[in-house]
Amino acid sequence: MGQFTFHEAVTRAEPVNGAPINIDRRSLIKSGIAVSIIALWHTEPLGAKEVKMSENKKHGAVAGTLNADDVWAVSPALAQYTAGPLLDGVWKRPELTPRDRSVVTVAALIARIQLIEMPYHFALALDNGVKPGELSEIITHLAFYAGWANAMSAVAIAKDIFHRRGIGVDQLPPAKDKLLQLNEEAEKQRAAQVSNNFGAVSPGLVQKTTDLLFRDLWLRPALAPRDRSLVTVSALIANGQTAQITYHLGRAMDNGLTQEQASEVLTQIAFYAGWPCAFSALPVVKDVFEKRQK
Amino acid sequence: MGQFTFHEAVTRAEPVNGAPINIDRRSLIKSGIAVSIIALWHTEPLGAKEVKMSENKKHGAVAGTLNADDVWAVSPALAQYTAGPLLDGVWKRPELTPRDRSVVTVAALIARIQLIEMPYHFALALDNGVKPGELSEIITHLAFYAGWANAMSAVAIAKDIFHRRGIGVDQLPPAKDKLLQLNEEAEKQRAAQVSNNFGAVSPGLVQKTTDLLFRDLWLRPALAPRDRSLVTVSALIANGQTAQITYHLGRAMDNGLTQEQASEVLTQIAFYAGWPCAFSALPVVKDVFEKRQK
Amino acid sequence: MGQFTFHEAVTRAEPVNGAPINIDRRSLIKSGIAVSIIALWHTEPLGAKEVKMSENKKHGAVAGTLNADDVWAVSPALAQYTAGPLLDGVWKRPELTPRDRSVVTVAALIARIQLIEMPYHFALALDNGVKPGELSEIITHLAFYAGWANAMSAVAIAKDIFHRRGIGVDQLPPAKDKLLQLNEEAEKQRAAQVSNNFGAVSPGLVQKTTDLLFRDLWLRPALAPRDRSLVTVSALIANGQTAQITYHLGRAMDNGLTQEQASEVLTQIAFYAGWPCAFSALPVVKDVFEKRQK
Repeated sequence: MGQFTFHEAVTRAEPVNGAPINIDRRSLIKSGIAVSIIALWHTEPLGAKEVKMSENKKHGAVAGTLNADDVWAVSPALAQYTAGPLLDGVWKRPELTPRDRSVVTVAALIARIQLIEMPYHFALALDNGVKPGELSEIITHLAFYAGWANAMSAVAIAKDIFHRRGIGVDQLPPAKDKLLQLNEEAEKQRAAQVSNNFGAVSPGLVQKTTDLLFRDLWLRPALAPRDRSLVTVSALIANGQTAQITYHLGRAMDNGLTQEQASEVLTQIAFYAGWPCAFSALPVVKDVFEKRQK
Repeated sequence: MGQFTFHEAVTRAEPVNGAPINIDRRSLIKSGIAVSIIALWHTEPLGAKEVKMSENKKHGAVAGTLNADDVWAVSPALAQYTAGPLLDGVWKRPELTPRDRSVVTVAALIARIQLIEMPYHFALALDNGVKPGELSEIITHLAFYAGWANAMSAVAIAKDIFHRRGIGVDQLPPAKDKLLQLNEEAEKQRAAQVSNNFGAVSPGLVQKTTDLLFRDLWLRPALAPRDRSLVTVSALIANGQTAQITYHLGRAMDNGLTQEQASEVLTQIAFYAGWPCAFSALPVVKDVFEKRQK
Repeated sequence: MGQFTFHEAVTRAEPVNGAPINIDRRSLIKSGIAVSIIALWHTEPLGAKEVKMSENKKHGAVAGTLNADDVWAVSPALAQYTAGPLLDGVWKRPELTPRDRSVVTVAALIARIQLIEMPYHFALALDNGVKPGELSEIITHLAFYAGWANAMSAVAIAKDIFHRRGIGVDQLPPAKDKLLQLNEEAEKQRAAQVSNNFGAVSPGLVQKTTDLLFRDLWLRPALAPRDRSLVTVSALIANGQTAQITYHLGRAMDNGLTQEQASEVLTQIAFYAGWPCAFSALPVVKDVFEKRQK
């Protein structure tokens, strides 16, 4: 017969708890309901609030709400690489704290809208010491450094995690916060350089960069400048934005990121954004390291 | 009335097999059923058909079907940046019309499969004067310039918006349309250059480029060449395809896009594709502007 | 307690309008509910197991679970381009077998998390002769070459296809497989070069590259080195990772990919990753071809 219709598929549904589910697709769509894979993506890693990562593994959760059995059913090798070399290996290397690894990972996931791992890693980030206000601020930061919709996708995931953990607006940084003190000299230099280069090419973009980013967003106190830089650099590497790494890696190191930490960011991010992104960043990172040593 | 709530939406659902479906969103979320994010992606911005953007804000919808309350619950700062600097700021700058901003934004969202903002911005585009046939043609154009699945993801969103607004196939450009007249001289030059460079590297790709793109797609009359170029350039910037910007920005300006408009595209796209994409495009755009002034 | 199951989660759902919602996830998946866009992404192309691509077209399925009517309702032109030039044209060109085209397409979709076309193309790949164990291994390979979440998203789709087709773990490569013999000389050279260049920049990344990739993943026998290379090159092109193409295209050709096949990969991938990705790869591919001919 070939195809069978959605309606048939549904009316064939087996009774659950004694009653058949009969839902017509059209009315669900009309009503805006929408179940399914997203179901898969949507839920917080079960019990992630209570358990540590090692326990999570014990209980079988490896990624998002796919559990180890799901991954095993498609790729035993991937399940093994996840449990061993990744969760039990890279995540435990001492060159970066678990908190920093969470910051890097969350930034990479948001930068690439990798929804399926967001619930697990947002929850893990909170467990690893990223404060709710910091996660909130990471999302806001990435609206500017990865795109508005990337941030909004993260909002959709974080909203439910915050709700379940009882995290209210009182724990979040206010819309308008008391800003950190600006290094006027450094900012004048930055603004002058960008303005000289591109002021005539896109005056609107140059102006918004100064007003919204460097005299506002970057000065919000709920995320330390060093962490804000870590988020930015992670997003740039994860999105293959090599042309922007030089400036921001330098800024990150000025803000306190050590060379050893920056080096290890590449190890962490290779898994979450793929080896090619990490390798494409290597020559730029090398260049930044070398220039700072002179 | 403007908005109607999710609960209302659901309880309005038509009876199926004799019984109404009454599912409360909160319990679904709590139960992990997932409704949710996808639900979020799926539905048209509530009341977007009837209300203007400013009214939308008044009613609280900021992005996709996340409303201002949802965003506020995760990041009051992001809610503020959205309502103020973005919707009430950038979108009102005179350098680009709201219609052009919608074209740029829709192209950027499709180019990056940023589903969560598609329902809102597809509806807004129609409200801003993009004709259904033009939106249809933008999606088709981006199948070639961003990937087949990008277009298909957009189809899944647009289909329901068209359905709700009663937009039928009679309002859409036909599969085979009467083509615009080709500038044979310019096309011969383009084809010769590409063929000389790459004819031996990938004869198949070179042939399809001529037959499907420049002697077919680009000549379809339902989207003006200038708008088609605007879509192309926006997608290239949004995907960091800097190597392809030079040719297509030149073509866009030949097709009537002014330098002031091109400059402002960068301001608009910085928000939707992120600052790094806009900044990586700046040197290339600068170069195009300078060469055309000679 | 740690985890609580999906079933528990659901049966804990609060009564709504007096009646509890009891929906078991398994039955939802089995019944094909999954409504909505995600439903759209989620389900295997209806009947794809039984029918060939040409029959698929006859029955109206063009992409994912969007059928031809859905595409037609938004863009008759896109429906026509899909049915004609793409499915009836490019896919039938003799320069690549349907199996190779499926490998390229699946790799491109996973590399870009283009969910909407995954169900259709995963099923088509199996129909075109890609073995379940090979699809499993492609997914695992892309965890490293495109990002962990890309692989996990593919797992979520493949899981249900495997389930429906009765593909069990016995048909999949084991977590730890007997490895192919390493070309020690070539690997020593590769490792030395990378170590000299970047050993001091990111010792962790360099070490993991050797241990996990070139002395483990690449030697797993369930995917032939030539196919593994084809997957890698396709992912690099599809993600615009031009800086990594030179090494991997050379490796692919060492592994048996012919120049004609590599050339045609560009034609195929232009449709699934968009023309700009294919064109940005052209100069690099040209360079590789020319250097090998000397």
